[in-house]
Amino acid sequence: MTRIAGLFDSRWVELPEGAREVAGGLPTGFAGGGIAAGLKPSGALDVGVILGEGRDVTSAARFTRSGVQAAPVLVTRERCRLEDINAVVVNSGNANAATGQAGIAAAEAIQESAARDLGLELSQVAVCSTGVIGVPLDPAPVQAAVSQLAGTIDAAGDEAFQQAIMTTDAFEKRASIEVELSGGEVWISAQAKGAGMIQPSFATMLCFIQTDARLEEQTADLLLGVTVKRSFDRISVDGQLSTNDTVILMASGDSGVAVEPESEDEKTFGRALDELLRALAISIVRDGEGSERVGRVTVRGGHGPSVERVARAVANSPLVKTALHGGDPNWGRIAQAAGMAVPGSAPLPVDVAIEGIQLCVAGEAVPHDESELAERVRQAEVEYTVGLPGDGHEAECFFSDLGNEYIRINAEYTT
Amino acid sequence: MTRIAGLFDSRWVELPEGAREVAGGLPTGFAGGGIAAGLKPSGALDVGVILGEGRDVTSAARFTRSGVQAAPVLVTRERCRLEDINAVVVNSGNANAATGQAGIAAAEAIQESAARDLGLELSQVAVCSTGVIGVPLDPAPVQAAVSQLAGTIDAAGDEAFQQAIMTTDAFEKRASIEVELSGGEVWISAQAKGAGMIQPSFATMLCFIQTDARLEEQTADLLLGVTVKRSFDRISVDGQLSTNDTVILMASGDSGVAVEPESEDEKTFGRALDELLRALAISIVRDGEGSERVGRVTVRGGHGPSVERVARAVANSPLVKTALHGGDPNWGRIAQAAGMAVPGSAPLPVDVAIEGIQLCVAGEAVPHDESELAERVRQAEVEYTVGLPGDGHEAECFFSDLGNEYIRINAEYTT
Repeated sequence: MTRIAGLFDSRWVELPEGAREVAGGLPTGFAGGGIAAGLKPSGALDVGVILGEGRDVTSAARFTRSGVQAAPVLVTRERCRLEDINAVVVNSGNANAATGQAGIAAAEAIQESAARDLGLELSQVAVCSTGVIGVPLDPAPVQAAVSQLAGTIDAAGDEAFQQAIMTTDAFEKRASIEVELSGGEVWISAQAKGAGMIQPSFATMLCFIQTDARLEEQTADLLLGVTVKRSFDRISVDGQLSTNDTVILMASGDSGVAVEPESEDEKTFGRALDELLRALAISIVRDGEGSERVGRVTVRGGHGPSVERVARAVANSPLVKTALHGGDPNWGRIAQAAGMAVPGSAPLPVDVAIEGIQLCVAGEAVPHDESELAERVRQAEVEYTVGLPGDGHEAECFFSDLGNEYIRINAEYTT
Repeated sequence: MTRIAGLFDSRWVELPEGAREVAGGLPTGFAGGGIAAGLKPSGALDVGVILGEGRDVTSAARFTRSGVQAAPVLVTRERCRLEDINAVVVNSGNANAATGQAGIAAAEAIQESAARDLGLELSQVAVCSTGVIGVPLDPAPVQAAVSQLAGTIDAAGDEAFQQAIMTTDAFEKRASIEVELSGGEVWISAQAKGAGMIQPSFATMLCFIQTDARLEEQTADLLLGVTVKRSFDRISVDGQLSTNDTVILMASGDSGVAVEPESEDEKTFGRALDELLRALAISIVRDGEGSERVGRVTVRGGHGPSVERVARAVANSPLVKTALHGGDPNWGRIAQAAGMAVPGSAPLPVDVAIEGIQLCVAGEAVPHDESELAERVRQAEVEYTVGLPGDGHEAECFFSDLGNEYIRINAEYTT
């Protein structure tokens, strides 16, 4: 099994007490797998399935907010009961986006035949796609692949599933953790993909999460909503919101351990899920197309929308990203991005620090140890903090650097 | 004299009838020049002055809307009568931004001594800076340079002035045109700088325009406002709004030819000024750090704010920019950027065409001649059009591609 090196190595992630990473595999009650259907010219795996084998799976889902949504997103939102998803069917190699009525028909056909093959209602099967935009998707090879998978999926299928959902990803993004609750241990597994077209709102990313804890529908929805906001909604590779983003949580209940609403267990489970999704989100940034360093910007001030706008403006600035890439402590670009995000506020008394070294106080440069600073901005993870007037609000974003590899990948990745 | 090759060669610019490009030099009533004050380590020219020699110059100005504004912007806005600017004093090599009270004091000191040296009121001298952010600016060498320039500036000084205001610019951006009005010929000259930190709102750019036409204050302000909105407010290199952007128009009246409000002459003069500023704005995009191709996106639809947002989203998308760089007709990224700009509108029936070749109609890919398309996206200028539902509104943006040179320049250009 491929080792997922360092998913929890980031200094910005820490599993709560009672939670620990385990080797992999799906929680009880789930089977999965992946297969090559010929959508990727390379012949790599490109169709994956995760099935909740029991019949009382609860679920929750979140989707891209883009005005241009891929056919599988429209079909899943339209035809699924989102609290009752029992299986996900995913293809990579083709996003089935900007494909019009034919694309909708293809997504529906895949959903229909998958429901038959997996013994489910149509409304229980979510369909997802990722890959190039604007190319018609022939449903037949995907349908045949799902038929074949239906007989072969198993509890060790998370690795093949992970490979089947990847596109430009340089490494796998999956983990399984065990969490101790008052009623016993539960397991959470997650598989994510994403490396480009990533924006904090959320990203060209897919993430599928399975647990054998028993969750009420509202608890699943609440926990997923909160943790997505703190993870996939907080990352930027290139500021580009995708047409296909989907996150789906499924809970089998097969551990027999319930997570009751507003209990200590809910907090513990929520914290573990939170750190797991943050770790995956940061790994997407780390895998940001051509990325070599990861930055985190934290903005504090007295006005919620402003701290949010400034954090996103810094995270999306190509000038900040190229400076991060070059290991260059060019904090003037942080001040510039901040100012751009709050027009009409001049003169804005902005504070800027990098790695705890104060560089600008109330809009004015302050003396600092330049060699110390130069060393710290060459680390794998670099921390930026911005202060705006007032206090009480805080926003953070994680972002990749911008280097030649991003250009190489994106100038050559064609429709 | 350096030939400014092809400023009016863009297919998106056309001088109106009665206007023609002339060889260079300043309009009657103006003197200018540039000198090396040691701010640029290279020893290149870095302080420039343009002086209206008469005493009844009218003027108009526009500034960055950033919340973080450089000291010279704050000082010029605070202490100048913007309709009565008789001289501009510009330094490159240091932006005098994020420099606090000391930066304000430096900008004021430069303004004060320049006013004495040039025989003007303090309120008649605009000060501008461009270069690195967050480094204290010693006013003394700038003051000495202006003193020296005061005795040597002349009507042929636009070339030296141009060189003194450049930073990462790869080529000069200046032109002089002659315009035939009913009362005789007038001359308009302009010098611009800008290559990075460029965003359609407007840009890290400076532009100084001189004319010997006689303009009323309101006419100067109206014409500058309209033409800046259609030029420097419509370009994106990297989506980054600067702290220092300044555009200043000065009219000496020395031709004796008046441009009367609401006259045919006003239209002719306005059209010529418009094409001149658009040509300079496009040349900033063409010089976008490392740029090899220029794109124009035109968005049409029934809702003003939406067409505007979509045009800016396409122009600022690193995915669209890298595709332009690679000569890649990746129109799916145009649809994706459009969708991102109008969240909550799914399914959005978007139309996309490149170089007049229709690729997507009402959200669905349509067949097209791929070899023809592949050839057209490899031109120096590429035209994108996006259609949203409805009609009556239109917005355009010009943008550079994103290539390795941008990374090289910006990962290495340090504070």
